[in-house]
Amino acid sequence: MTAATRRQSVDALVEAFRAGQRGALARLLSHVENERPAGLRAMSTLYAQTGRAHVLGITGPPGAGKSTLTNALIRAYRAVGKTIGVLAVDPSSTLTGGATLGDRIRMLENYDDDGVYIRSMATRGQMGGLSIAVGAATHLLDAFGFDVVCIETVGVGQDEVDIAEVADSVLLLQVPNLGDAIQTIKAGVLEIADILVVNKSEIPGAHELVRDLRNMLRLGEHGAWIPPIVETVAVSGQGIAELLKQIDRHRTYLDDSGEGERRRQRRLRAEVLRLARRQLAARLDEVLSDAAFAAPMDALLKRELDPLHVANLLARQVARDLSSNHP
Amino acid sequence: MTAATRRQSVDALVEAFRAGQRGALARLLSHVENERPAGLRAMSTLYAQTGRAHVLGITGPPGAGKSTLTNALIRAYRAVGKTIGVLAVDPSSTLTGGATLGDRIRMLENYDDDGVYIRSMATRGQMGGLSIAVGAATHLLDAFGFDVVCIETVGVGQDEVDIAEVADSVLLLQVPNLGDAIQTIKAGVLEIADILVVNKSEIPGAHELVRDLRNMLRLGEHGAWIPPIVETVAVSGQGIAELLKQIDRHRTYLDDSGEGERRRQRRLRAEVLRLARRQLAARLDEVLSDAAFAAPMDALLKRELDPLHVANLLARQVARDLSSNHP
Repeated sequence: MTAATRRQSVDALVEAFRAGQRGALARLLSHVENERPAGLRAMSTLYAQTGRAHVLGITGPPGAGKSTLTNALIRAYRAVGKTIGVLAVDPSSTLTGGATLGDRIRMLENYDDDGVYIRSMATRGQMGGLSIAVGAATHLLDAFGFDVVCIETVGVGQDEVDIAEVADSVLLLQVPNLGDAIQTIKAGVLEIADILVVNKSEIPGAHELVRDLRNMLRLGEHGAWIPPIVETVAVSGQGIAELLKQIDRHRTYLDDSGEGERRRQRRLRAEVLRLARRQLAARLDEVLSDAAFAAPMDALLKRELDPLHVANLLARQVARDLSSNHP
Repeated sequence: MTAATRRQSVDALVEAFRAGQRGALARLLSHVENERPAGLRAMSTLYAQTGRAHVLGITGPPGAGKSTLTNALIRAYRAVGKTIGVLAVDPSSTLTGGATLGDRIRMLENYDDDGVYIRSMATRGQMGGLSIAVGAATHLLDAFGFDVVCIETVGVGQDEVDIAEVADSVLLLQVPNLGDAIQTIKAGVLEIADILVVNKSEIPGAHELVRDLRNMLRLGEHGAWIPPIVETVAVSGQGIAELLKQIDRHRTYLDDSGEGERRRQRRLRAEVLRLARRQLAARLDEVLSDAAFAAPMDALLKRELDPLHVANLLARQVARDLSSNHP
């Protein structure tokens, strides 16, 4: 397949996407997941159609019931006639990836409804790959026309921060008695939460958890929006109506206060940085592997040059190439 | 303090470092740890003096006894008159950082010997920061003249891979009955191990662990070097003589087979890439924050431009700046 044919087939996919074909959405999401340039190109073309969806981020430790809560949200949104696209991000972290994928497949079986789209995404997360893929996939789901786009991700490691760089409203799930649940809420995580959800609130210890969270919120800093704490039993649907109400309230707050626009600006800035970094990183790889760069690498091996000096040479060479290619 | 004064004081530090003053080594390592340009500049100046040390990487899950093993190695190397510099890398991973630092301080109290230098390093690890800092610190310890440089790091998350990008010989520690020890050895981790150490080998389950590791090695791919499995009781020194023998054998293998030089080449390549990436990333931040770049960002917010297009503009602007600044 030549580059021209490939591009044409992406154009055809974009056309089919615009016509509302879910197969085209699925294929474009695969391109994005596999970090193929075609995925980003399609996102680039379709970006002008974004801006309708409210993007929810759902995060929390493994076992907090994120999938069950997502299921409950799907049902609740469908009941009021809203469409919803779900992206379940499985970081390659071996500990939880498998289980989450399994949950996803079970979820998929439950829906035969054009107003719902559920998709797992596993990424290696190299060179900002996870964030780039999730960001592009979010734009695609938004452009496809879903009223709500829900990004679900395990809140471990550095992923928590990423979710705030994609979502309008971040829901942080906690459950009582999940080991040292409170201790696992690191400072940075509580900061990104717009709504705290205490799930499985029928379990003993829920009241203590709510109290502890309330104290943590009191100690922490926040702006005009004080994150509400919603108690749910996602499996039975208890508390979900209240959760939807709080999500709507947060959306109104984002619109009215201008905070929504400020966040969007911050997120786009981060997205542009990630994409530009990746582009330059790809060039660095190319130039470093080029025969023309063998001499400085050789001098480095002989300790006639040092790594910092060679890195400067490399960065400048990439800069020269880029500026002469695009005058 | 002006830039000129700062540079002068780094020059003075480099002089003191060359005169063998440990205080200068400590201060330069702090510069590196805090990701100050002065640290990299010093590394750049002193790089020509590297190449004597054998660099050991010690990794393994928390609780495997890495600190105790390092202590045992220090004693063993000192007993044969070799000097050793130890860098204990504490990733900011909240789970283990504290404990490791505590171990470190206990270790420091035990030594009053010019042939030993022990240093903790905690880094945020942003933008390759961990790897850049550890790489530079390793060069500094090497240039200072230690016969052996030992980098110890918790083998969780992405750090395992980093150790292979710094060390000549990677020791992977395992202990019997540490939860699902075997399951925590992910494919990539076993691959980077040059020597497998089953520590606390007096604990029941050690034989099974050795057998399981042997089977895993049989299934995995390796070149001419088959990683030996050494059983140790680091706390009593049992097995340490054998471990030293295997480390020496690996060093000889690296020298004789040319694999050592190939690894060095790969590592330097990775180091140059990381340093160049960081340099370009810093420029990206600057240009994006510049008033001159407000127009495309504004168009992006209005959806007249898309993120990929703006990222391309940004990368090109950085390239133009870099090539005109350094003709």
